Amino acid sequence: METIHVLKIGGNIIDDPAALSAFLSDFAKISGPKVLIHGGGKLATQLSRQLGIEPQMVDGRRITDEATLDIVTMVYGGLINKKIVAQLQAKGCNAIGLTGADAGFIQAHQRRNAAIDYGFVGDIDQVDATFLLQLLEQGITPVLAPLTHNGAGQLLNTNADSVASQTAVALARSRKVTFFYCFEKKGLLQDVNDDHSCVPQVKLADIERLKADGIVSGGMLPKVDNIAGALQQGVEKVILCHAQDVLSIIGGNSNFGTRFSV
Amino acid sequence: METIHVLKIGGNIIDDPAALSAFLSDFAKISGPKVLIHGGGKLATQLSRQLGIEPQMVDGRRITDEATLDIVTMVYGGLINKKIVAQLQAKGCNAIGLTGADAGFIQAHQRRNAAIDYGFVGDIDQVDATFLLQLLEQGITPVLAPLTHNGAGQLLNTNADSVASQTAVALARSRKVTFFYCFEKKGLLQDVNDDHSCVPQVKLADIERLKADGIVSGGMLPKVDNIAGALQQGVEKVILCHAQDVLSIIGGNSNFGTRFSV
Repeated sequence: METIHVLKIGGNIIDDPAALSAFLSDFAKISGPKVLIHGGGKLATQLSRQLGIEPQMVDGRRITDEATLDIVTMVYGGLINKKIVAQLQAKGCNAIGLTGADAGFIQAHQRRNAAIDYGFVGDIDQVDATFLLQLLEQGITPVLAPLTHNGAGQLLNTNADSVASQTAVALARSRKVTFFYCFEKKGLLQDVNDDHSCVPQVKLADIERLKADGIVSGGMLPKVDNIAGALQQGVEKVILCHAQDVLSIIGGNSNFGTRFSV
Repeated sequence: METIHVLKIGGNIIDDPAALSAFLSDFAKISGPKVLIHGGGKLATQLSRQLGIEPQMVDGRRITDEATLDIVTMVYGGLINKKIVAQLQAKGCNAIGLTGADAGFIQAHQRRNAAIDYGFVGDIDQVDATFLLQLLEQGITPVLAPLTHNGAGQLLNTNADSVASQTAVALARSRKVTFFYCFEKKGLLQDVNDDHSCVPQVKLADIERLKADGIVSGGMLPKVDNIAGALQQGVEKVILCHAQDVLSIIGGNSNFGTRFSV
């Protein structure tokens, strides 16, 4: 089997229908086996507020009480996931929408934290790639919502970056995987205010120096740690980029995107 | 492959967490390949009202404007579907939640009606059983939400009875199928006020006489027409019953449920 492309998109694309449609057109054109993971965007927060539930965030993570779990299950697992699937079907990509509970392929446990009760938030124990590989071999493209389950009947709200990187790692145990980690910038920037200052290549061994130099700092720290983890666990290449540049990066354009490798 | 059991459950079970949990325990115990189709229940109506959208119904069918489509996509495709999947996983049944857009297996078109604009309501053109059969052969149990798509990117709210019967028909083209059509009564009753007056057996040829005698009337008419259509299109047996009696009917108890056959 060819290299599997695993792509993660976040709120900056999901919250913008025109950008999402353009991205899905590009995604449908990627040849070979591929997997899309989407985050949540602002819709869950909007729906929460409409229902009179003020969202509570700690360090960028949503505190997920039972009412909030219902909301993210509706928004991530229903609305966003199925709209993406229907659009991909129209663009010639045979997509299937899944949470980690479907076919039981992501087992997680509820986060235990002495200081903060995150509620129904899941940390991933295991991604079973077998089922995803069967779908890919049938030409079907999994579209994953950031929800998992604990195997005892409980759905769990789960960080989309973790779902994406751990899915990439699980697939990398038996296949070559390139993981496109899409976000709101063009890549890892030397100068955060200059989109043309992308660092084209980063080796795993360079990461500590980049942190020391301050090029990796703030919100980039957890992203780069996530990327380092994926590389250490067998993902061949991780490309940090903007979703709109994915196709041109695959086509060989090295002006945008940062290519991380071992 | 053994006979495929296709079961449809409605609002009376979905809206009652204890009844749903009991039913899912029973469902998990059915051996061999099986498919579950769930309706919507009252949750979509409740969420609509909470969001200030007064639901509009014509002849028991929901008028589905864009906001309402988002609501049913969230509630049917997200909340109800994924909660059922997570519960079945905990009960040892390897469930996967799907809409007709997933893997594109139910193609529909938006209903055209000169008198009433139903909005984003779908009538089914085709159920492709191939994908469902592949899942069943892998020991995976599809759980279907009553949503389809038109192949051009539009999700469509679709009658759960139609999704169930047309899925049963599609599977019956290559396998023996028994379709359990579960509702709030014990079966087709001679006396609508006496749960112990189930008609045990009905042949397709008897249906017109039962209509003439008034035993099939009112809300039973569309159900029995749906059943007749399934039998005419190759489903071997349709059992109209209460969800709580499914296991005992499979076990041979003939006191409850009405068995329809050609």
